Amino acid sequence: MGKTTRRAFLGGLGVAAGGTALYTTMRMMGDVPASEYKGPVKLDGNPNGAKVLVLGAGLAGMVAALELRSAGYEVEILEYREKAGGRCWTLRGGDTYTELGGAKQNVSFADGNYFNPGPWRIPYDHHGVIDYCQRLGVQLEPFIQKNFNAYLHTSQGFDGTPKRYREISADYRGQISELLAKAVNQGRLDDLVTADDRDILIESLRATGILNDELTYEMSMATSRYRGFGKLPGAGFEGAPDASEPIDLSPLLQSKIWARLAEPDMIDHQTPMFQPVGGMDMIAQALAREVGDLTRYNSKVLSLQQDEEQVTVTYEDTLTGEKASTTADWCVCTIPFSILGQIDHNLSSGLSQAIDGVWYRSSAKWGLEFNRRFWEEDEGIYGGISYTDLPIDLISYPSGDMFSKGPGVLLGGYVWRDDLAYEFTAMQPDERIKWALEYGSRIHPQYLEEYKSGVSVAWHKVPWVLGCFGIWRDKERDYANAVDIDNRVVCAGEHVSYLGAWMEGAVLSAVDAVSRLHDKVING
Amino acid sequence: MGKTTRRAFLGGLGVAAGGTALYTTMRMMGDVPASEYKGPVKLDGNPNGAKVLVLGAGLAGMVAALELRSAGYEVEILEYREKAGGRCWTLRGGDTYTELGGAKQNVSFADGNYFNPGPWRIPYDHHGVIDYCQRLGVQLEPFIQKNFNAYLHTSQGFDGTPKRYREISADYRGQISELLAKAVNQGRLDDLVTADDRDILIESLRATGILNDELTYEMSMATSRYRGFGKLPGAGFEGAPDASEPIDLSPLLQSKIWARLAEPDMIDHQTPMFQPVGGMDMIAQALAREVGDLTRYNSKVLSLQQDEEQVTVTYEDTLTGEKASTTADWCVCTIPFSILGQIDHNLSSGLSQAIDGVWYRSSAKWGLEFNRRFWEEDEGIYGGISYTDLPIDLISYPSGDMFSKGPGVLLGGYVWRDDLAYEFTAMQPDERIKWALEYGSRIHPQYLEEYKSGVSVAWHKVPWVLGCFGIWRDKERDYANAVDIDNRVVCAGEHVSYLGAWMEGAVLSAVDAVSRLHDKVING
Repeated sequence: MGKTTRRAFLGGLGVAAGGTALYTTMRMMGDVPASEYKGPVKLDGNPNGAKVLVLGAGLAGMVAALELRSAGYEVEILEYREKAGGRCWTLRGGDTYTELGGAKQNVSFADGNYFNPGPWRIPYDHHGVIDYCQRLGVQLEPFIQKNFNAYLHTSQGFDGTPKRYREISADYRGQISELLAKAVNQGRLDDLVTADDRDILIESLRATGILNDELTYEMSMATSRYRGFGKLPGAGFEGAPDASEPIDLSPLLQSKIWARLAEPDMIDHQTPMFQPVGGMDMIAQALAREVGDLTRYNSKVLSLQQDEEQVTVTYEDTLTGEKASTTADWCVCTIPFSILGQIDHNLSSGLSQAIDGVWYRSSAKWGLEFNRRFWEEDEGIYGGISYTDLPIDLISYPSGDMFSKGPGVLLGGYVWRDDLAYEFTAMQPDERIKWALEYGSRIHPQYLEEYKSGVSVAWHKVPWVLGCFGIWRDKERDYANAVDIDNRVVCAGEHVSYLGAWMEGAVLSAVDAVSRLHDKVING
Repeated sequence: MGKTTRRAFLGGLGVAAGGTALYTTMRMMGDVPASEYKGPVKLDGNPNGAKVLVLGAGLAGMVAALELRSAGYEVEILEYREKAGGRCWTLRGGDTYTELGGAKQNVSFADGNYFNPGPWRIPYDHHGVIDYCQRLGVQLEPFIQKNFNAYLHTSQGFDGTPKRYREISADYRGQISELLAKAVNQGRLDDLVTADDRDILIESLRATGILNDELTYEMSMATSRYRGFGKLPGAGFEGAPDASEPIDLSPLLQSKIWARLAEPDMIDHQTPMFQPVGGMDMIAQALAREVGDLTRYNSKVLSLQQDEEQVTVTYEDTLTGEKASTTADWCVCTIPFSILGQIDHNLSSGLSQAIDGVWYRSSAKWGLEFNRRFWEEDEGIYGGISYTDLPIDLISYPSGDMFSKGPGVLLGGYVWRDDLAYEFTAMQPDERIKWALEYGSRIHPQYLEEYKSGVSVAWHKVPWVLGCFGIWRDKERDYANAVDIDNRVVCAGEHVSYLGAWMEGAVLSAVDAVSRLHDKVING
C-alpha cells in the first residue's frame, strides 16, 4: 500500500525542504481541534463579597462552587446526600445503599473492587472533565471500550452461542465487500460509479474486505488474520496456524448479530476512552477536597424563593428533621429537574415549563463480583464490552487491575431502554440480580459457579435523582429558558446541556452558568 | 436493534430457568479459547545434574534458562551484550548506543521517558508473554493501538492534510454501504441475494453505514456521531452541535487514504493491546533478576562445536579480548541465524541449510522527544497511531504517562518495507532523524518548534542481530530442521516459530525447545 518508490522517496526529500512552511500554514488553518471547552474559565472583576448559594454537590455544583470561590464570591453548598458526587458515584465493599421503597443493599466487594452505578467512562473529547481531572490530580487510565475478543451475542441465531466481535466484524465487512466488489466488477453499477473510480473501488474493497483475487471472502490465512485463527500460530513442529471458517452472509444477516457492530465506533464510545484509577467518584472526591468546606451535607431543599433582593432556600436536615433557611444574592441550582419540579419554588413560568418538560430516563445497572476473573483467565477478554440482545444489553469487563488474581467485579448489565428498565426497576434488588445472573450465564456459564456477590441500582429508585438523566420533551421550546438566568437563579447540570447523561455536560454547563452569572454580577 | 418486547422478555425469563444447563454445555463444547500456550511448562523427571549451555540472554534464552534451572539442570548463559534482553530493549536518558559503523548516540530523554527500538506492544492473545509477565510481576498497562482521533494521512489527496481516522472510517463505510444498499434496493443483485436476505441486508447497511431513509449517507447529526461533529455539543445558549460534512466517495478512493483502514483490525493489532509500565525491557529486567546469576555478559561466541560427548563453545570477552571455552551436555542456541551463520560451527547440514535460508528484514525506528505533548494538548490524541504513506510509515503516540506535562517521546517512524528501510539504514543517525522530523512535520507542524532530541535505530546496523527479525526463504523445506534437536543443540527464538518478530514467538519457541530437550534427556 502507498507504493512510494525509491524515486518518489528521494523526490519527496527534495521537495520537502521548501514545503514545510506551506504545510504548517495549511494545517493551522484547516484542522483546528474541535472542543467547546476553552480551558480554565477566567472570571475577572471583583464581586464585592456577593454570596452564591449552590444547590447540589454533584459535579456541576462543585465545579460552580470552585470557580466562584476562586473569583472571590462567598459560596455555600447544600447537598441532600451524606457525601458529594451525586451520580458520580462508586460503590465499594462496606458501602450500603438504600433505594426508594426501602430495600437496602450491603456491598461486600473485596478490597480494591468497585462498581460505578452512574458514569463509568470518559470520551477522549470530553476536554472539560479531562482538564478538571488534570488540575485536581485525578489519575486517569484507559477504559477499554472496544474489545475485538469480547462477544457479540444474539438469541436469534447461532443457537445462542456468542461470537467474538472480531469474527462478526471481519465477516460482515468481508461478505459485504465481496457483494459490492463483484457487482462493480460485473459492470452492474457503471451508472453509479465513474470509470475512473471503478477499479480503485474494487482495489479498496479487496484491501479493506480482505478479498482474494477472485474478489471472494473465503477461509484463508489472510481472512483469519482479521477474524481470528482456528489454531493460533505457535512454535515447534506443530507451530503453523490453522485458518478459521468465515460465517456466510445469510446467517450473519438473519441473526441480526450485526445490530451492535457500529456501536463502539460512535464518537462518545470511540477508542481511547478513560476512567479514573480506583473508581469514578475519585473525581467527586477530588472536587470535594476543594469545596467540601463550603458544603452542608444531609440537607434536603424544601423551598427555593427569590425576590428583588435575594434568594431564600429552606431545607431540612435529614438526620435531625430540623428545618432551617439560608439566603444569598444568587443561586446556582443543579438539582435535577425531576426533583426540582417537586420543590416549592417561585421560578419564572418559562423556567417552570422547562422543568416540567424534562423527564428522566430510567436505567438499571449491576455490579457483580465473581471469585476470579474468568473472562480474562478462561476467555482472554481484558476489559471491553460484550453486547447482547438479552435484556441486560451488555456485559462490561473491568479495565482496572487487569491480570490480577482474586475476585473481580464486572458490569453485569446496563439497561436504559424504557420497556426493559421499567421491568427491572419494578423488581427488588435480589430479583434484579437473579435475572442478571441468569441472562449473563448464557454468555458466560462460569457465572453459575463463580458468583460471589452483587449490587444493583435502578435509577428511578435513586432517591436523590429519581432517574438516570434528563430527556427533553421539546428542547427547541424550552432549552433557552432553562439556560437563561432566571432573575437570581441559574440552573446547571447535565440536563441543561447538549451532552445529556455525560459528566462533560455537567461540567460545561456549570462553567457556562457561572460565566454568565459573573458577567451579570459585574456588568449588570 | 434487538427489539425484545415485554412479552418476549417475560417469555425469556420463563424459559431461562430450565435452559441454563443446556447453555453451559453448549458453550463448553463450542468456543474453547484458542491459545497455543498451555500455561507454565512442567518438566518432570530428574536430569541428574546435566548441564545446559544457553547462548543468548534475550527472551528465548532467559525463558529456557529459567525453566531448565527449575527442572534441576545446571545452566550457564553466554550473552554478547553488557546486559540482558536482546531486542527486548528500551533506551532512556543517559543510555548510549553505538551502531555498526561506529556512530554513537547519547540519549538525553527526560526522566521517565523512553523509546523501545524493538518490540513495543503485546497482543491480547500472546498468552505466553502475558503469563511470564504475571509470574514475574511485570506490570502491564493498555497500549493504545487504535485511536479514532489519530490521523490517516496520504500525500496523494486532500492537499496532504491529515484526516482523522474516525472521518475516513465512517465515510468510507457509509459511502460503500450507500452504494450497495441502493443497488440491492433497485433489484440489481437479486440473483446474488435471496429474497429472504434482501430487506435485512438493506436494514443492516442502514444501521452499520448510518444511512438515512433514502439509503443515503449524508451530512447529518447521525453521521456526525460517527465521523465527528463540526462543532462539538456543549452547554449554554450555543450548546447545540453542528454536523460535519462527509467526504465524497471519489476523493476517498482516489486519495488511497483507505489503504490503512483495516490495519488496526488485524488480529495482532486488535484492541486491547498491552505494554509493560515503564518500557518493554521491564520484561527483560524481570527475567534477568531470575537468571542473571547464570549469565556471563560481554561474551561473544566464536565457535560452537558438538560431538558425542558434549558441546564446546569458545567465546571472547569483549572487554578484555581474552578467549575462553566452556562445555555442557546440551545447548539451547538462541543466537539469531544472521549471526549464527557467521560463527564457526559443526551443526548438521539440515540445520545449516535452515540457518542460511533465513534472512533478516531491516527496519528503522525513531524515538523523538518534544518539549511538550502537543499531540495531546493541541490535537486531543492520547496514544494510538497515525498512518501515512510518507516513508516514516506511521507515528505512534505514547500510551504511558498520558495527560502528563513536560517532554514526551513519540515513535517518529517505523519503517520495515525493505526499499525504504535500506534508504534509512544507509544514513547516519543524524540524517535519519532529520528526515523523520521533516516528514513528521507534514502531519504535526509543531515538530518544528517543539523538537528536543531524538535517537534512531536502524536494525541492520544493530551489532548483536544485524536485522530486525527473520524471514524464511523456504519455510516448508527448512522449518522442521531448524526446530529439531540437532544432536545436542536445539535452536530457539522468534525466528524458529510462526510468530516471527514477536516476543511471543521467542517465548513459545523456548518453552517448546526445552520441553523436547528435557524429554530427550530423560527418555533418550
